[in-house]
Amino acid sequence: MVAVLISEKALIEQIRRMAKTANPAVQTGIGDDCAVLRFLPRRGQLTETLVTTDFTLEGIHFRRDWHPAESVGHRCLARGLSDIAAMGGEPVAAFLSLALPRDLPQAWVGRFARGLISLAERYSVTLAGGDMAESPNGILADIVVVGTVPKGKAMLRSRARPGDRIYVSGELGGSAAAVWVMRKEMRKKSKRTLNPRHYPRHFFPEPRIELGRILREKGLVSAMIDTSDGLSTDLAHICEESGVGAELQAEVIPRACVGKPAREVDLQFALHGGEDYELLFTSRPGKRIPSRIAGVPITHIGQITRQRKIFLRNRGGVGYELQPQGWEHFRRG
Amino acid sequence: MVAVLISEKALIEQIRRMAKTANPAVQTGIGDDCAVLRFLPRRGQLTETLVTTDFTLEGIHFRRDWHPAESVGHRCLARGLSDIAAMGGEPVAAFLSLALPRDLPQAWVGRFARGLISLAERYSVTLAGGDMAESPNGILADIVVVGTVPKGKAMLRSRARPGDRIYVSGELGGSAAAVWVMRKEMRKKSKRTLNPRHYPRHFFPEPRIELGRILREKGLVSAMIDTSDGLSTDLAHICEESGVGAELQAEVIPRACVGKPAREVDLQFALHGGEDYELLFTSRPGKRIPSRIAGVPITHIGQITRQRKIFLRNRGGVGYELQPQGWEHFRRG
Repeated sequence: MVAVLISEKALIEQIRRMAKTANPAVQTGIGDDCAVLRFLPRRGQLTETLVTTDFTLEGIHFRRDWHPAESVGHRCLARGLSDIAAMGGEPVAAFLSLALPRDLPQAWVGRFARGLISLAERYSVTLAGGDMAESPNGILADIVVVGTVPKGKAMLRSRARPGDRIYVSGELGGSAAAVWVMRKEMRKKSKRTLNPRHYPRHFFPEPRIELGRILREKGLVSAMIDTSDGLSTDLAHICEESGVGAELQAEVIPRACVGKPAREVDLQFALHGGEDYELLFTSRPGKRIPSRIAGVPITHIGQITRQRKIFLRNRGGVGYELQPQGWEHFRRG
Repeated sequence: MVAVLISEKALIEQIRRMAKTANPAVQTGIGDDCAVLRFLPRRGQLTETLVTTDFTLEGIHFRRDWHPAESVGHRCLARGLSDIAAMGGEPVAAFLSLALPRDLPQAWVGRFARGLISLAERYSVTLAGGDMAESPNGILADIVVVGTVPKGKAMLRSRARPGDRIYVSGELGGSAAAVWVMRKEMRKKSKRTLNPRHYPRHFFPEPRIELGRILREKGLVSAMIDTSDGLSTDLAHICEESGVGAELQAEVIPRACVGKPAREVDLQFALHGGEDYELLFTSRPGKRIPSRIAGVPITHIGQITRQRKIFLRNRGGVGYELQPQGWEHFRRG
């Protein structure tokens, strides 16, 4: 056990040296019982604090044979940053709890930390603390991201109203389709064709922080969520929290292109596939939404209705009720 | 998988209903991408935000055959609250990430949540969010506690100076000795004699929030930590972060009484046993420290020295260097 403790200490020191980004709000980071954060009023305006926490579990959220360690670290933090983006917030600090199996090569952890910290640096996020333990089985990570938003300006899920229009950023279904391709190749024991170059947004998703901030500043949003569980499930969250329903137009839902050669994914992936980390938001009818914000395409895909159900309609107007289908990750892989 | 998702949703709803305590700082709790916290200045004074995160892993931090579910939930939150106490802070909100094996009885989770939430209520802590996932193996929990402290007043590990006196609250070694008794009985397959009634502080440790707050308000502390890893390790943390050493008097270290009939624990438990969640602090030589604060005994056990080593001396003045011995939890059980 002493050997493990020493290497744990060495790991914490290694991460502490790597995590140099100093967000000015972080007064005390790694190395005390708690991190100490100081949020000063900005231009005389008080801020509120955002907190989000997300698991990244081996076998559930990633597979070591599919995902390079850098990708696992990047995706771990991206999950939390995407939640901050969905509130229109700015991220400040991250906390990483990491449980590692005794036989894990230390090099894997170094690459994991590099993936996580290089994403953190791009958003001036300080890795300010966490916990480390020995895992009885597989790699377990839990990421906490703390951010800030001007007082009263956080964009909640609960403020959609009948008549609001529904928009989504980027393209949907790509992450689930990439997993589907990898699973198929694994089952057939065929040569691996999909790698991070062919669909970087699955392996290194870019959280929509800038887009979320602009949407907040311009007051364009009534309700917002990120598409971590899939369009059908995430839209159902907005509808439940707002006490409304929705209608989607099937043919306008933007679908990702995945593979080599790249093909547009099936509608089912775009409707139910998770981990795209796009922003799904509603806007009051009078608001003009640009077709591109911060370089990201924005698509009008439907509207909020009074009846508490979600309908999917095709071009002819024929439709059926859409059931939220939760994202299954890699469980059946 | 749908069945698991439905029960996950039911669980989140159950926890949401149970978690009614509304700390006024929590603007938005469970049910959005992030929690939204608002820290207003108190009596014109700005506050800083404290964040701490701690794992509770089955087989590492608890065993289902030793610890009732209520105890596991209580201890999970107590770990985080104790870190807030060690900064002299006041806890505000908790976030629970919980990964559960598919075959875990839902009743276990209900009792776990009750243990956690009833401790939260006593400190006006809102359970404001978290994450839920299926665990590939064993119960995994990660608790985040967010608290507040007046600006610049957090009590850090790094401010001890040579000549400062070292104090500890309560008694040490009880938690490790309780585990030792349970392990011995398990090995011998003898009748289980130790239960929560015989040593409640192992099963239901009370975080020293009130004590930490008073020590901060009265300005009595130069450096502070909680004894989660054991006296030798936690004192080493203070010494490392402050760049100092220490001398302890062996015979005055307060030892817990455990078992039936209750016996004072061996010195080794008091020196190296973790999870007592007492406060270990240093104080400048001129300060008068009461022998009891907020009902908890306070014992003077040594002093800070210039030489960067920790010595343990007995009554005759003979001593040896004390090596920090990390807390092993239940790994060898």
